Amino acid sequence: MDINNLRNVLEDLQASRLSLDEAVNKLKILPYEDLEFVKIDHHRMIRQGFPEVIFCQGKTAEQVATIMKSLSTHNQSILATRATEAMYTVVKAVLPEAQFYEVPKIIYVKRDTIEPDSKRFVLVLSAGTSDIPVAEEAAVTAEIMGNKVERIYDVGVAGIHRLFAHQDIIQNANVIIVAAGMEGALASVVGGMVSKPVIALPTSIGYGASFNGLAALLSMLNSCAAGISVVNIDNGFGAGRLASIINQMR
Amino acid sequence: MDINNLRNVLEDLQASRLSLDEAVNKLKILPYEDLEFVKIDHHRMIRQGFPEVIFCQGKTAEQVATIMKSLSTHNQSILATRATEAMYTVVKAVLPEAQFYEVPKIIYVKRDTIEPDSKRFVLVLSAGTSDIPVAEEAAVTAEIMGNKVERIYDVGVAGIHRLFAHQDIIQNANVIIVAAGMEGALASVVGGMVSKPVIALPTSIGYGASFNGLAALLSMLNSCAAGISVVNIDNGFGAGRLASIINQMR
Amino acid sequence: MDINNLRNVLEDLQASRLSLDEAVNKLKILPYEDLEFVKIDHHRMIRQGFPEVIFCQGKTAEQVATIMKSLSTHNQSILATRATEAMYTVVKAVLPEAQFYEVPKIIYVKRDTIEPDSKRFVLVLSAGTSDIPVAEEAAVTAEIMGNKVERIYDVGVAGIHRLFAHQDIIQNANVIIVAAGMEGALASVVGGMVSKPVIALPTSIGYGASFNGLAALLSMLNSCAAGISVVNIDNGFGAGRLASIINQMR
Amino acid sequence: MDINNLRNVLEDLQASRLSLDEAVNKLKILPYEDLEFVKIDHHRMIRQGFPEVIFCQGKTAEQVATIMKSLSTHNQSILATRATEAMYTVVKAVLPEAQFYEVPKIIYVKRDTIEPDSKRFVLVLSAGTSDIPVAEEAAVTAEIMGNKVERIYDVGVAGIHRLFAHQDIIQNANVIIVAAGMEGALASVVGGMVSKPVIALPTSIGYGASFNGLAALLSMLNSCAAGISVVNIDNGFGAGRLASIINQMR
Amino acid sequence: MDINNLRNVLEDLQASRLSLDEAVNKLKILPYEDLEFVKIDHHRMIRQGFPEVIFCQGKTAEQVATIMKSLSTHNQSILATRATEAMYTVVKAVLPEAQFYEVPKIIYVKRDTIEPDSKRFVLVLSAGTSDIPVAEEAAVTAEIMGNKVERIYDVGVAGIHRLFAHQDIIQNANVIIVAAGMEGALASVVGGMVSKPVIALPTSIGYGASFNGLAALLSMLNSCAAGISVVNIDNGFGAGRLASIINQMR
Amino acid sequence: MDINNLRNVLEDLQASRLSLDEAVNKLKILPYEDLEFVKIDHHRMIRQGFPEVIFCQGKTAEQVATIMKSLSTHNQSILATRATEAMYTVVKAVLPEAQFYEVPKIIYVKRDTIEPDSKRFVLVLSAGTSDIPVAEEAAVTAEIMGNKVERIYDVGVAGIHRLFAHQDIIQNANVIIVAAGMEGALASVVGGMVSKPVIALPTSIGYGASFNGLAALLSMLNSCAAGISVVNIDNGFGAGRLASIINQMR
Amino acid sequence: MDINNLRNVLEDLQASRLSLDEAVNKLKILPYEDLEFVKIDHHRMIRQGFPEVIFCQGKTAEQVATIMKSLSTHNQSILATRATEAMYTVVKAVLPEAQFYEVPKIIYVKRDTIEPDSKRFVLVLSAGTSDIPVAEEAAVTAEIMGNKVERIYDVGVAGIHRLFAHQDIIQNANVIIVAAGMEGALASVVGGMVSKPVIALPTSIGYGASFNGLAALLSMLNSCAAGISVVNIDNGFGAGRLASIINQMR
Amino acid sequence: MDINNLRNVLEDLQASRLSLDEAVNKLKILPYEDLEFVKIDHHRMIRQGFPEVIFCQGKTAEQVATIMKSLSTHNQSILATRATEAMYTVVKAVLPEAQFYEVPKIIYVKRDTIEPDSKRFVLVLSAGTSDIPVAEEAAVTAEIMGNKVERIYDVGVAGIHRLFAHQDIIQNANVIIVAAGMEGALASVVGGMVSKPVIALPTSIGYGASFNGLAALLSMLNSCAAGISVVNIDNGFGAGRLASIINQMR
Repeated sequence: MDINNLRNVLEDLQASRLSLDEAVNKLKILPYEDLEFVKIDHHRMIRQGFPEVIFCQGKTAEQVATIMKSLSTHNQSILATRATEAMYTVVKAVLPEAQFYEVPKIIYVKRDTIEPDSKRFVLVLSAGTSDIPVAEEAAVTAEIMGNKVERIYDVGVAGIHRLFAHQDIIQNANVIIVAAGMEGALASVVGGMVSKPVIALPTSIGYGASFNGLAALLSMLNSCAAGISVVNIDNGFGAGRLASIINQMR
Repeated sequence: MDINNLRNVLEDLQASRLSLDEAVNKLKILPYEDLEFVKIDHHRMIRQGFPEVIFCQGKTAEQVATIMKSLSTHNQSILATRATEAMYTVVKAVLPEAQFYEVPKIIYVKRDTIEPDSKRFVLVLSAGTSDIPVAEEAAVTAEIMGNKVERIYDVGVAGIHRLFAHQDIIQNANVIIVAAGMEGALASVVGGMVSKPVIALPTSIGYGASFNGLAALLSMLNSCAAGISVVNIDNGFGAGRLASIINQMR
Repeated sequence: MDINNLRNVLEDLQASRLSLDEAVNKLKILPYEDLEFVKIDHHRMIRQGFPEVIFCQGKTAEQVATIMKSLSTHNQSILATRATEAMYTVVKAVLPEAQFYEVPKIIYVKRDTIEPDSKRFVLVLSAGTSDIPVAEEAAVTAEIMGNKVERIYDVGVAGIHRLFAHQDIIQNANVIIVAAGMEGALASVVGGMVSKPVIALPTSIGYGASFNGLAALLSMLNSCAAGISVVNIDNGFGAGRLASIINQMR
Repeated sequence: MDINNLRNVLEDLQASRLSLDEAVNKLKILPYEDLEFVKIDHHRMIRQGFPEVIFCQGKTAEQVATIMKSLSTHNQSILATRATEAMYTVVKAVLPEAQFYEVPKIIYVKRDTIEPDSKRFVLVLSAGTSDIPVAEEAAVTAEIMGNKVERIYDVGVAGIHRLFAHQDIIQNANVIIVAAGMEGALASVVGGMVSKPVIALPTSIGYGASFNGLAALLSMLNSCAAGISVVNIDNGFGAGRLASIINQMR
Repeated sequence: MDINNLRNVLEDLQASRLSLDEAVNKLKILPYEDLEFVKIDHHRMIRQGFPEVIFCQGKTAEQVATIMKSLSTHNQSILATRATEAMYTVVKAVLPEAQFYEVPKIIYVKRDTIEPDSKRFVLVLSAGTSDIPVAEEAAVTAEIMGNKVERIYDVGVAGIHRLFAHQDIIQNANVIIVAAGMEGALASVVGGMVSKPVIALPTSIGYGASFNGLAALLSMLNSCAAGISVVNIDNGFGAGRLASIINQMR
Repeated sequence: MDINNLRNVLEDLQASRLSLDEAVNKLKILPYEDLEFVKIDHHRMIRQGFPEVIFCQGKTAEQVATIMKSLSTHNQSILATRATEAMYTVVKAVLPEAQFYEVPKIIYVKRDTIEPDSKRFVLVLSAGTSDIPVAEEAAVTAEIMGNKVERIYDVGVAGIHRLFAHQDIIQNANVIIVAAGMEGALASVVGGMVSKPVIALPTSIGYGASFNGLAALLSMLNSCAAGISVVNIDNGFGAGRLASIINQMR
Repeated sequence: MDINNLRNVLEDLQASRLSLDEAVNKLKILPYEDLEFVKIDHHRMIRQGFPEVIFCQGKTAEQVATIMKSLSTHNQSILATRATEAMYTVVKAVLPEAQFYEVPKIIYVKRDTIEPDSKRFVLVLSAGTSDIPVAEEAAVTAEIMGNKVERIYDVGVAGIHRLFAHQDIIQNANVIIVAAGMEGALASVVGGMVSKPVIALPTSIGYGASFNGLAALLSMLNSCAAGISVVNIDNGFGAGRLASIINQMR
Repeated sequence: MDINNLRNVLEDLQASRLSLDEAVNKLKILPYEDLEFVKIDHHRMIRQGFPEVIFCQGKTAEQVATIMKSLSTHNQSILATRATEAMYTVVKAVLPEAQFYEVPKIIYVKRDTIEPDSKRFVLVLSAGTSDIPVAEEAAVTAEIMGNKVERIYDVGVAGIHRLFAHQDIIQNANVIIVAAGMEGALASVVGGMVSKPVIALPTSIGYGASFNGLAALLSMLNSCAAGISVVNIDNGFGAGRLASIINQMR
């Protein structure tokens, strides 16, 4: 429509139904975003193979189902995070190909069959077993977005030899996500071992002076190792998406 | 030396100066890191073309000069952040090729003459003019580490058209660093415009309820745009180094 | 009555039932507020067409019903915020004309039929769909107080073109309320686009380092755009009432 | 230039040097902001009679002088906040008509001679004498922007009769700014007395558990009086500018 | 030396240089904890007419009943705060004279029949109706401890004339407790009106940036009025007990 | 004067120079505070023998001198806290009878010669020697306001026998002020020993996690001993004034 | 196995199946931790008589049962903290010798019959009865790890004579754990009485400004008594384990 | 009863049913504060070889000199922390044997010549070079108190091989102090490597979100490794003294 709008003005100018000054004035106030930004949005879908992601928290099962159904008509893959099993039941009814990862609470549709580049993988580490749901949100997000993902869980610094036993895979990863609650020290240790981007993912695991993940968050922000950056507490999706973006850079 | 140590044990075994059990026992307690980690360190230097960086705050000018002199014998480039002009005077006396960037307070030596890949550049944005010293710490760090860097400063969201005027260069950047104090909203806006990694760099610019950068930090951590991660307040070096690591990935 | 009280003293003086000194003493301690402040209160009702508003949280359904019933005898409109459906049932039984807005949880009575000034409208923006209940509390408050209200929801900065598509209505609004959780950046962007008062309304939407709305609150307080002021987290009523006061100024 | 750019494309179309499709394509990617936003900026200047304001903190005296000199060629009035006397000396040398308000630390040029509307005034209240510099930043900002301003200082709630003695002027004000540090209670008391917009301006005055203005800020955000909104701690400029915007609404 | 001191006294007793009573007196003032503290405890009971108070939160109904039963054998009055109705049922079964105040959640026994001094009363003010449970905890505590208590509720500063209507009773109170949540400004206003001790009692009433009473607490600690001191958030018992101690001083 | 104003209206009514309605109207708008509050103020002065106190921080030496000079004409005693020696020099020049307490930084004039009641004394305790300046601000304030004050300093809980050695004076005090920084535990221990009002005065003494007195403040607010209330960090004046008010109650 | 791996390489060298250089290269990258750290782990078990402890929070009953069953095959004692009764039922089914301490919520197996050294005991103090569950977690942990433990509960500083009545046992303890919520002052008082290590264990007991144990935590960190260190809020296990380590040092 | 108890003993003595020594022994254990505490103090001195330590911050050079001079007459060793060189000059004048450690800012006198037990040593680790002053305060404190101390500095987790290179000395230490700022992760890593008490000593080194050591403090409190406890930020003395107490336990 806006393209038509633009075209109409130009046709009027061509047909002398508008003077040059009148055309300049009309176009000067033409809503820019209708031309420019839509194009960017299509660029995004083409480049990343991924549409907008649904954050289910605070939405009803019906709303989630409606949005997923709608997205499913134009996209190959769809991702909904922080979903519940009850939401999944409702989604499944309208979108039978939808699947549910229980641990990270993710509903998804994945139709593309392109194999991820097996030489460039994202590594997801977790300090403890309680950090696994958040770590899995990151891992599954990266997988659905087309990346090979490796996982090493429960390698916290209190028994640092468990981490070092995985030296090889750590050195070969292309991007590393470190999910850790409590004191979050694992991010610094990993950051000191590698020359790859490390995405520190603080979790709210802990009690008392962990203040729901604040301790891990501050610890990671203050890391003495370079090459580390931090996402929000429990933001597995954000970590996974950033890892995917970096991993697919050429 | 440690390699020699290992070799000596093996030679003694070969020459039957040690029994098999004696060799096993000797090697079992051999400090592992002397073998393994030193190698990693050399890997790092080769891959990144960059040795350890000196954080000058809390060091005397003499200490900085001594460390830079020492590093200068084995490395092509040296970087010292948060330096003072007084420190530079002392460093210059012992290391005449050292140079000083006044705005970001960086002393450096750069001997390599390899041209950075001009097609893959790091873009550094700042919201205000007061954020420039921190933004420059990031920009200069990335440059000295061998990256082409573009800068667009003073494009805060209060006048968002200033940002959109640079749409082209933003879309073409490989990695983007966004330095912003006060409410730090620029990171979210940029994160919503691109599909490249955005490193949010909160600065301590502001007053009152900015609480020395806390407002910008929290704002960036809670960004509703995906693909954003955050470094510590005023940590220009960390942002620059991470940008360099990502930009040089293949 | 108090006016009568004052009049009685003066009449007694006039009639020499009181000496001058006795009258001075009586009046010296006369409760001033009974004269002065009641008048102000009536001023308020006349000027704003609106009596005291009931904050239901922490009250029983019966208390809410009693207060609404009582207010209904002297006022044209009544407003009760943070109500529940259960409260509404009890209120409806004693005040059949009461109505309930489910999303913003508002019970109200509106009897006046004066049309709001359609040229001066309040615009309510929300960054996300989860911010809508708080945004609606603001919007409905302003409507019941006699203002025309326009709404544009889900125009967060992560996809800033959605905001710019509404450039016209934004530029024509008389007062703008911006409801946003997470990083709250929308307030700054809007503040930079207009020369009208912008009331920033932080919401508690988010998780982790949003700290229940603190991130959005600090972000909005530190906005680099002028013309912005902030109300408490989730205080949709406060934002709506202030918008109404400003919108009805002449 | 961009207008020229647009005009050139249209001329080329008119002269058949471009086909219709070629023109559509060229214009589709034309940077919108160069057309649209610049116009907005001129709108802003015309409507408010005020250009961008200089925040001097963190700038050198030379930078401030250069910016003021440059702004002075296109604008009637110029305002620089958080200036020092030393800055003023440098500014005065290049811009002799510049003047300095010592208490609020403001350098300004005011050339227009239009009288403000004397019936619509902004009232600035301060709780204590120590809040006066911040209150004056608000008052002088509003004055330079063309508003009549009244001041009542040192009317904190510890002696609330001092406040009530000014009942008349308070009731007649169009917009009220309340500057208060310590517990910031004055904003709530004033907010309960009037039906006009009250801009609460917390100051960093206090010690101990005032935490540099945090106590006053939280107090004001939680005000039980409606019609109050809050700006950042010590942000006298922001309060003054918002007051000016509201006061000049018709 | 103290051993010597002790030995000297004993030698003097042995040598009849000291009588038994003289020795007892000399030694009586050495060891306070076994001699002195029990005495102090009895002093306390005699002076205040009140034994230890039971904080029920975190105790089982059976534990509360057992302690109350036990205390009831040696004391005239017993007080248990933060009780539940369920606890009361269990207590009532073993201690039939126990009574329950529902609003402040207090179980008590009161057997003494001494009338409180009616000229010296404690005044309890609350800013809002939601503050009443905490205010009642303070009021009932003071009453059970033998004080006359007056209450004025819902006199928050947003309608300050409601407070001033009670000027007389406020001026005549001996000690004043001010319970307020949200911004807690009432304490400062009252503190500025009287020359009596004002005990500020912040409540957790509020939302958003009240941070569960922190805003009221900070506000009260920073009060610009003298003669105010503060107890913990929601600590009605502490306020009531302190008021009782002050009110019963002679 | 205001009393005169009132008297004039009444005389005019009596002399029929005003009709009854005219008198009602005149009095209805008479500023109430001129009648009522001034009286309160004089009450205060008579009852407490003390006028307003000057908080010197943020005032110039000249301002302090002017205010003290002015207050000295109508009052017996004057008190200025947080003064500097330089301020004292300026005050001394215009008010030769002014004196300076160096440790608590107090300038004062004390002309009345009434002996304080020696049987009712305020006791000021400090935990450490570094708390003495704040403790002295409290002690001297209470003294100048006409109270007998006893001091026991450096009796922190790390060596609790030092405190118990003063058991007698502690038990005989009428009001107790406990000044303590670091962990502030002394207030709880003293509160558990006595049945008198204990005013907890947190100081900013400490480092690290004392967060400038926050640790002591929170500790005192959470005291498990009843009868304790708290003033702001370092608010020696507030503690002294409250102690004086309580100590002079009959 | 890894020892075998090492031995194989050495045997191959000895048997000339590998050259010296080949052996150096193979061993240079041998995972160190497989040799070194496992040995440390066995050391730990031998020295402390205790394997890894299970933190049940966030685990399913089945997971807890599986881990306990698995640990039970190689260890004498097993400890699981923060368990529920429901978890215990599941564990009991697969591990009948498991027992449950209800107050501290600990499931354990203890098979060793070695008597703890009765002369070296750990003393656990609690300030209130509500602190007992956390205190018991510490006490039972130390007991199961082979230490004699004495308990003194409900000796908070509000009645400090209760503490002093236990002077003897306090002086004879080898390590002291002090569990306290609210203001946490007990740790400082005990720390000032003894020359033994005092482990301060803040609990989340309290309300209002205790901020879930923050007040106690800060208080303990700022203790003016030396010899005190602090563990996380409610971390009874950590305190018990550290006490055990210290108590078993020789 | 206690009075009776006392009287009984005295009567028994008088009646020769008790010898003088028996009476002394019986009474010696009653009054702890005069008998016991002084004894404890002497015990402390004998056991630890150390009197009270002077915290110089906030004291004048003269006060420090006076206290040190006074302590020097009764003690073998004296320790003053947080001293300045200027203080040392004044102390030296009156106490010529005093010496000054510049890095940790400690003035001390050490006269005893007893060699520390060389088999039991305290190990002090620091993460960075900037942590050395705090680490040295801990190390020198432990040394002056009679312990052998080993130091390993600059072994932060960003290059964890530097730490592992010192595996031997770490495993042999009796008590370990870990001084670290920034993210403080070193404490967790060390805690996971050893079975000895680890005293975590957070330092204020860092910037931005380190919030003056808060990040390191929280990180250490939340350590997932057992056997760790924490002292206040920058409290090197406290860490050193606790390490000394533990190291000298038998």
